[in-house]
Amino acid sequence: MQINPDRFLSDLHRLRGFGASGVGKGVVRPAFSDPDIAARDWLAERMAEAGLTVHHDPVGNQFGLAPGPSLLVGSHSDSQPEGGWLDGALGVICGLELARASAEAGGPAISVANFQDEEGRFGVTTGSTIWSGALSLDQADTLTDRDGATFAEARGAMAHLAGGFVDPAQFTGFIEVHIEQGPWLFEAGEAAGIVTDIVGIRDMRITFTGEQNHAGTTPMHRRRDTFQGLAAFAALLNERFQNVVTPQTVWTTGHVDLHPGAHSIVPGRCTFSMQWRDGNGDRLARMEAIIRDTAQEVADARGLGLEYGTLLGLEPVDMAAPLREALAGAAEQVCPGRWRRMQSGALHDAANVAKLMPAAMLFVPSINGISHDFAEDTDEADLIIGMQVLAQAVADLR
Amino acid sequence: MQINPDRFLSDLHRLRGFGASGVGKGVVRPAFSDPDIAARDWLAERMAEAGLTVHHDPVGNQFGLAPGPSLLVGSHSDSQPEGGWLDGALGVICGLELARASAEAGGPAISVANFQDEEGRFGVTTGSTIWSGALSLDQADTLTDRDGATFAEARGAMAHLAGGFVDPAQFTGFIEVHIEQGPWLFEAGEAAGIVTDIVGIRDMRITFTGEQNHAGTTPMHRRRDTFQGLAAFAALLNERFQNVVTPQTVWTTGHVDLHPGAHSIVPGRCTFSMQWRDGNGDRLARMEAIIRDTAQEVADARGLGLEYGTLLGLEPVDMAAPLREALAGAAEQVCPGRWRRMQSGALHDAANVAKLMPAAMLFVPSINGISHDFAEDTDEADLIIGMQVLAQAVADLR
Repeated sequence: MQINPDRFLSDLHRLRGFGASGVGKGVVRPAFSDPDIAARDWLAERMAEAGLTVHHDPVGNQFGLAPGPSLLVGSHSDSQPEGGWLDGALGVICGLELARASAEAGGPAISVANFQDEEGRFGVTTGSTIWSGALSLDQADTLTDRDGATFAEARGAMAHLAGGFVDPAQFTGFIEVHIEQGPWLFEAGEAAGIVTDIVGIRDMRITFTGEQNHAGTTPMHRRRDTFQGLAAFAALLNERFQNVVTPQTVWTTGHVDLHPGAHSIVPGRCTFSMQWRDGNGDRLARMEAIIRDTAQEVADARGLGLEYGTLLGLEPVDMAAPLREALAGAAEQVCPGRWRRMQSGALHDAANVAKLMPAAMLFVPSINGISHDFAEDTDEADLIIGMQVLAQAVADLR
Repeated sequence: MQINPDRFLSDLHRLRGFGASGVGKGVVRPAFSDPDIAARDWLAERMAEAGLTVHHDPVGNQFGLAPGPSLLVGSHSDSQPEGGWLDGALGVICGLELARASAEAGGPAISVANFQDEEGRFGVTTGSTIWSGALSLDQADTLTDRDGATFAEARGAMAHLAGGFVDPAQFTGFIEVHIEQGPWLFEAGEAAGIVTDIVGIRDMRITFTGEQNHAGTTPMHRRRDTFQGLAAFAALLNERFQNVVTPQTVWTTGHVDLHPGAHSIVPGRCTFSMQWRDGNGDRLARMEAIIRDTAQEVADARGLGLEYGTLLGLEPVDMAAPLREALAGAAEQVCPGRWRRMQSGALHDAANVAKLMPAAMLFVPSINGISHDFAEDTDEADLIIGMQVLAQAVADLR
């Protein structure tokens, strides 16, 4: 099968016209926003032109369906509040171009998926999570965004398009093309990454409670200072993780709130975020045990109270071997020696779809590892290589 | 001279009626608020009844002036947004009762001071700072509170009362009675603290700048994580201070701001407050050098940028020996063995007034060391002892 690079790149650039940020190639296209819905309407036309039957489900997931059994290929066209032009949009256009090229070549049958709210305006990969059955529609409808709008209200904006949920049984598998979002491929000068697995995530809030006091009159030995507790916790945790983690393991505290937050008051309460990711479920559990033991030890030593928020847990997901190896074989044909097998440190729709059918992912390089930023970009030669690897893999699967 | 404990306590309780919080004995009486001005109007009547000439200066400082040379005694009646009933109000009523008792005893001449905005709605000990000459009226007028109101606007609420600034040359000295705000006297079961000096304060914001990144796809070795920088800085600082500090030295980080403050984003910027206090100017300077060296070392080791905000510097202030020793001698007469010499870890109006005349301070115990809280309190027996120590010291000064 022959892909059409010009048609592929042209559609990719036309798509970034919806919600264009005016800064570089960036886009502002959050789920269910006017630009997001306009982009999906335009994509629906492209899918129809490709001979696909357009279908929207009740939560805004968009499909271009081929008749009979087919391979599903796609990603998501919604973006972060300050998003890049590729991210999930690349995977959707890859699916569209593959469907066109495959139809021109007489098969195989390709359907296209464009999931809704992957970027988590409401939940986390909301649309594909609901489709996979991991989140009920009733639960989802109560989710709110930062401005207090509910998912129920938001999906109302696409209600006029909505049919039922698509039966996953018609799909033989799912392939998602996405930018890496990390630095590995770019720094190695490689063109393709074959995802072995999508890492699991653990995320929770931790709160130390101490005693709010005057920063001038309270002697150090008498303080129950929650900031000092946080600093001690973070330092101990880094030491104790060393014997457990791999070079791919990551852990992050991205939010800290000290109360009352004044220069002259010893903070009586400190709430902070603790998130860790790894491809191995046992390692995630060992890290959780270390986190809880260390926090308790710090609290006991300093006379602090300790509270935990809800633990968000997403399990690691292995990619399906047949699809994964077809992508690997195709990469070796298209860009020999310039590809690698790698983990996905970011969550993707494929992690949800894997609950319904065999799923695999293909990464292209992110320049300087930048994503979720207007500056996000990938060399167009690498975009074309990614498209060719996808097409070759699908051809080889026959 | 004989003080009148009932009259003293009665006025103290009447004063807490202005801006009563309804929670315990707490008050809400910020500088220039309606309750603050009403309290000052009521105090003006008490001063006049005591035979003093009431005078307000352009910045809301209130005086009850005795004719000729006099000893100035007082503090401030404004409170924190959530303040205790004593704090500075105690010192003002002590001055009032002393003026009455002294007049009844035929002298010595006592004037009363009630400074404005000691609690720093606008600056830091604003009223007495301006009177001391350390801050010009023009500079002060541009200061704003949390809601953006300017000092110029606020002092307009007392403009109808305002005369000129009072000539400090008429005062032979200044004595301020205040609650300790710390735990030392209460824990030792002592009744009086004779302040040897008011500690100096250094305060600045420190900002680490790194690289904002995806918390899933950015490997640890490639991160420039400003939270990790803060944690490393805090841990190193505690170690390095050990050889420099005394049991009275304190240092505090009460505010931390991570940007953008999301669970899934490596924080690219961290701004935090660093405040340290000590009675010795050289030690404050040594601590500053350690702070700057340690921050630079952490920044260099982690590839972070480093910026400092304005350094607020208040020098330590020694209390005047003659007044201080008169208070010490009186304490030994009134509560033998139940008093101590001690530092003030908190800033007070006396630190400013000391630039104009000999100044001294007397502390009474704070139950559980609590202050700037509705729960702030002191045993009334200890309040009376404090009043008696003040009166005895003034009598002995003749």
